[in-house]
Amino acid sequence: MIRRLCIVGVGLIGGSLARALREQGYCHHIVGCSRKADNLERAVELGVIDSYETNLAKAVTDADMVVVCVPMGAMGAVFRAIRSHLAADAVVTDAGSSKRSVIEAAQQAFDGLPPFLVPGHPIAGTERTGVDASFASLYRGRKVILTPTPNSAPQAVARVKAMWEASGAQLIEMAPDHHDEVLAATSHLPHMLAYNLVDMLGTMQQRREMFRYAAGGFRDFTRIASSDPVMWHDICLANSDALLAAVDGFAASLAELRTAIADGDSETLMDCFTRAKTLRDAHIELDAP
Amino acid sequence: MIRRLCIVGVGLIGGSLARALREQGYCHHIVGCSRKADNLERAVELGVIDSYETNLAKAVTDADMVVVCVPMGAMGAVFRAIRSHLAADAVVTDAGSSKRSVIEAAQQAFDGLPPFLVPGHPIAGTERTGVDASFASLYRGRKVILTPTPNSAPQAVARVKAMWEASGAQLIEMAPDHHDEVLAATSHLPHMLAYNLVDMLGTMQQRREMFRYAAGGFRDFTRIASSDPVMWHDICLANSDALLAAVDGFAASLAELRTAIADGDSETLMDCFTRAKTLRDAHIELDAP
Repeated sequence: MIRRLCIVGVGLIGGSLARALREQGYCHHIVGCSRKADNLERAVELGVIDSYETNLAKAVTDADMVVVCVPMGAMGAVFRAIRSHLAADAVVTDAGSSKRSVIEAAQQAFDGLPPFLVPGHPIAGTERTGVDASFASLYRGRKVILTPTPNSAPQAVARVKAMWEASGAQLIEMAPDHHDEVLAATSHLPHMLAYNLVDMLGTMQQRREMFRYAAGGFRDFTRIASSDPVMWHDICLANSDALLAAVDGFAASLAELRTAIADGDSETLMDCFTRAKTLRDAHIELDAP
Repeated sequence: MIRRLCIVGVGLIGGSLARALREQGYCHHIVGCSRKADNLERAVELGVIDSYETNLAKAVTDADMVVVCVPMGAMGAVFRAIRSHLAADAVVTDAGSSKRSVIEAAQQAFDGLPPFLVPGHPIAGTERTGVDASFASLYRGRKVILTPTPNSAPQAVARVKAMWEASGAQLIEMAPDHHDEVLAATSHLPHMLAYNLVDMLGTMQQRREMFRYAAGGFRDFTRIASSDPVMWHDICLANSDALLAAVDGFAASLAELRTAIADGDSETLMDCFTRAKTLRDAHIELDAP
């Protein structure tokens, strides 16, 4: 149980967590914090949070759980703003999409890694943003990866774990660098590919036509290109090493596929497509909701 | 109205057309043809076709409309097999994903482009295949592109157009090369990217993990990697010129994005993602069903 939950950044991610925990009666009070009062008022109106604060220091005062759900680029500033105002029993976690950079930002902000910090990342979301897009079941059956630091107190880890489990998620622990590599390949790279494809089509002369004749496959493929630009800008910078490695791996692999197409190399094409289909079909079965 | 419709290749595309036309009472008789008798028996069982033939020459005899829905690589062989057996009033169309190659195959098979040939391409489909995946509403509200040759008889074009309209589709005419360029960019390229991404992840050491932590975005992005490998192998070879140009454009654009990530070039990243999101959001509104 959480006495006072402070959600910093009440959008899709923070809002959905608040909704899920409220549904479970897991918190006595949920306070939301962000710079935008109108968004917070909307969150109160929707019943997502009980109260709000636009001042971070006030927002975290007396909170026993603080969940930071802001774009990667704002993590450091949030940590600095709350560092002197946390309650003695407070645990701090985040929902950032890359973990090494959050840990580095925390290390600077807190002058070392504090025992109350447990970095985390819910593998869930949609291309929509904002508290209006939030819903209580977002995390049900989804994975949340925790990347505790060497200094994270076991009890703090247990409390963050229990919170996410209450939201319906399945918890996994992982080393931060490993998390960043896996996510670069399975999430950050696909977003780059989708953004790049849509942007490229937009520069073509027959631009309107390009979109007019795009079929259902295109719609699904590019759905993630509707994601929040600021969030993805920040992820690119925060996880650039792992992301660049993933982009390079993809580009090299695409160059091989290009050669196969140019050479009419049936065997290579069939092998590639068959392997991919087999993996993808198995993946669907494995993870079907 | 069609007296006797012959569907060559009774899978998702041909089966769905048959179902749609049957629902509209648009055909007196639908005969299916393919090399696989068990698939055709299944199609009769499902009520998709009235009868079947495994012999192409017999199948087209007396048909006033022949729709060839086979992988691109099989088009030429089908045209050669039917050329001497078509009825005097027969119109022949196809559902191939690239049009220049179909026209070239027809030119060879028929010794020139016959007036009864009207190449076409329904911009619809799912990653599923086979007659069991077919459904009557597949073409409802979707676009069908016709690419008549200089020799196509206006009346033949009108009959093919009327057939697809009866299935609920919206008809467009386009030059074959233009069709091939647009489809290379909006359909063939995305399929290559999805196949390439899944295949690349499959070769990584942490392969099982890669798929285990993939979220909803990945699922959508890679859905088309579950498409039929034979069909896509054939499309790669049939539309290689336009596809290679699209792959090269994408690779060049990805290299620029890579530079922006490596340089921490916020402006370029924000510009790219914002342009893409704006286009994609507008595209969704434009085409939402």
